[in-house]
Amino acid sequence: MSEGGIGRGLVTFLTDFGLAWGPVGTCHAVMLDVAPGVRIVDVSHGIPPFQIRAGAWVLASALPYMPAAVHVAVVDPGVGTSRLPLALLCDRGDVLVGPDNGLLLPACERLGGVVEARQITNRDLMRRPVSATFHGRDIFAPVGARLAGGLPFEEVGPEVEIGHLFGPPWRRPEYEEKRVVGEAALLDSFGNVRTNIETARWPVEAGARVRVRAAGVDREVPTARTFGEVGRGELFAFDDSSGYACLGVNQGSAGEMLGVRPGERVELERM
Amino acid sequence: MSEGGIGRGLVTFLTDFGLAWGPVGTCHAVMLDVAPGVRIVDVSHGIPPFQIRAGAWVLASALPYMPAAVHVAVVDPGVGTSRLPLALLCDRGDVLVGPDNGLLLPACERLGGVVEARQITNRDLMRRPVSATFHGRDIFAPVGARLAGGLPFEEVGPEVEIGHLFGPPWRRPEYEEKRVVGEAALLDSFGNVRTNIETARWPVEAGARVRVRAAGVDREVPTARTFGEVGRGELFAFDDSSGYACLGVNQGSAGEMLGVRPGERVELERM
Amino acid sequence: MSEGGIGRGLVTFLTDFGLAWGPVGTCHAVMLDVAPGVRIVDVSHGIPPFQIRAGAWVLASALPYMPAAVHVAVVDPGVGTSRLPLALLCDRGDVLVGPDNGLLLPACERLGGVVEARQITNRDLMRRPVSATFHGRDIFAPVGARLAGGLPFEEVGPEVEIGHLFGPPWRRPEYEEKRVVGEAALLDSFGNVRTNIETARWPVEAGARVRVRAAGVDREVPTARTFGEVGRGELFAFDDSSGYACLGVNQGSAGEMLGVRPGERVELERM
Repeated sequence: MSEGGIGRGLVTFLTDFGLAWGPVGTCHAVMLDVAPGVRIVDVSHGIPPFQIRAGAWVLASALPYMPAAVHVAVVDPGVGTSRLPLALLCDRGDVLVGPDNGLLLPACERLGGVVEARQITNRDLMRRPVSATFHGRDIFAPVGARLAGGLPFEEVGPEVEIGHLFGPPWRRPEYEEKRVVGEAALLDSFGNVRTNIETARWPVEAGARVRVRAAGVDREVPTARTFGEVGRGELFAFDDSSGYACLGVNQGSAGEMLGVRPGERVELERM
Repeated sequence: MSEGGIGRGLVTFLTDFGLAWGPVGTCHAVMLDVAPGVRIVDVSHGIPPFQIRAGAWVLASALPYMPAAVHVAVVDPGVGTSRLPLALLCDRGDVLVGPDNGLLLPACERLGGVVEARQITNRDLMRRPVSATFHGRDIFAPVGARLAGGLPFEEVGPEVEIGHLFGPPWRRPEYEEKRVVGEAALLDSFGNVRTNIETARWPVEAGARVRVRAAGVDREVPTARTFGEVGRGELFAFDDSSGYACLGVNQGSAGEMLGVRPGERVELERM
Repeated sequence: MSEGGIGRGLVTFLTDFGLAWGPVGTCHAVMLDVAPGVRIVDVSHGIPPFQIRAGAWVLASALPYMPAAVHVAVVDPGVGTSRLPLALLCDRGDVLVGPDNGLLLPACERLGGVVEARQITNRDLMRRPVSATFHGRDIFAPVGARLAGGLPFEEVGPEVEIGHLFGPPWRRPEYEEKRVVGEAALLDSFGNVRTNIETARWPVEAGARVRVRAAGVDREVPTARTFGEVGRGELFAFDDSSGYACLGVNQGSAGEMLGVRPGERVELERM
């Protein structure tokens, strides 16, 4: 597993730090300091502060389309408290590094599931002294970079029970043949409502109609492959490019049209 | 052309995806997966959604100051429809990769013009399956990275007539000796009004005065080299650092002062 | 000093350019063009336009936690005027490159102080022609990259008197045993009020109480190690992870609660 490093030296990085001040760059520099050969890809640093759900959705929608790598993710309202720092080895060969608050779980499931979970306790791998409020810099970034640089997975710390990990930051959708109840997970920058409904479980094929119930709205809408297939300003449902059902408006905002917010119920029913 | 890759392995990347969620990072990882040796430079991912004009201006103002490279650009309201995916070889040696909607054209003109245009059709170069809504990840990023990694330009697909390409996303300025009529292309983050008026064609030299007509305003203003040469809060015209005429306010916003919006007419006249 | 380059080829980069348009990417490409082997880490490009104080705080809070490197920083309302372009060698081995307006000074002090200051005058190291409004692209980026690539420090230009450098962009805090008066330096993206009060000089230990006087508010608050130790919505003071005293609210905004703005007085007193 560890020869040459997980992911051929690739580390991905997601946080809710924002890019307006310095913490993301500090973590990059720390990674390059402890493992000079790694290549770092920023998944996003624009997760709204403390929104574990949004961070989890972005990881789960992005990581399956990347090569196997070490993925460091920090959305961590419990920093400095007793929540565990984790490293999770997935079936596909990826390792996810971050806090035990559910952030990592949905992505792990899409990477084949967790095959080995470890608590990060090895202080030799951390930046010293470890601060109380910046574990991204002091624990997660250096440990992730070292794993990508060739550190054997076992060295981060002792195994923990996979069954004891904190669960995903949303209720799992209820999948029925004609109906599914899930949640809005994220409003993206184009105004689309990204849900946690997996299209591998509940396909949204183009050319049909579905009933959408969300935030008090109850409407029948078409399904389509892409924006150009519906009229300007028209609401429609589609299988987004990352395996989740999505509500969009051609050149408009489905989020604004529906008034639905992350965490709220979204129900789809086939007509 | 292709030995060692166009641009010595350098790929630049511009989109309207924003940095709040995951698509930019996914494209980076896809590029490093298919061509591990490339170096990626982000030009911008803050182009307002679907604003082809703004994306075109940023490309045209930035690329001439970079070394020759592969430039991947995605502002693509027509994704998944019949608009062509293109690779355009320019006289300076750059290749621009993106949709056929005019986004790439103004930059190509500043790089010596398109010398060979090809439609991207070679599915072996794409991520499979190709989604209907994320051609950045599935077509443009992997094809661009492979070109930077050494793929011969001819392999992307068949030639298309240069004369049949979709035109630039603005009306070309009307250049006269004392007068020019162009458009506001972008309000930058400092509040400057960046126009599509090329100063190589219509010089804006410091120390003179010009009449500005835009958005109902008609004012005579000084020209200057830099902000510190005019009074605080004073509107002035200058030759910006990228070859376009620009309206600025020292420590203020010309966009707010004039109320002009991207796409609107800007007329300058020498006094 | 110069064999193999300062900072093993690492360049960090901070500006107030924002990421919505192209200048940051242009500077990256220029750096990779003149020094292909350098690795670039973005500290931040979200410093509010012309806010030297915010840029100085971000540099000073981030750089001590990075390895020694060349640090290019551009927040430069005086671009094109007579202010000097500088390269400052610090005791730890770092070189800071940017304008002489106080931006670089607080970080230099935390890196052991400036040991040699030089004015950048060597035009062979610059992009030509040098524009009047984009010294980031034409002077600071290429000179910084060349230094990281191995250019001897002395070649940038003649020495200048360290005592003649423009001072820090804030009043130095008045440290007394029980009381300290400093400034709000930055409201971070979590809503925390970052001050310029150094905890190495005036420790903020957890488990005590301090009186906070800022923006007309006068309140006694607890001190804590981390957010999870105080109630939701509670204001508290803490030693942030970068060596400065900070005011925070668990899952809320201290900046909004206090109404304090960057540059305003913050007084702390031990109870």
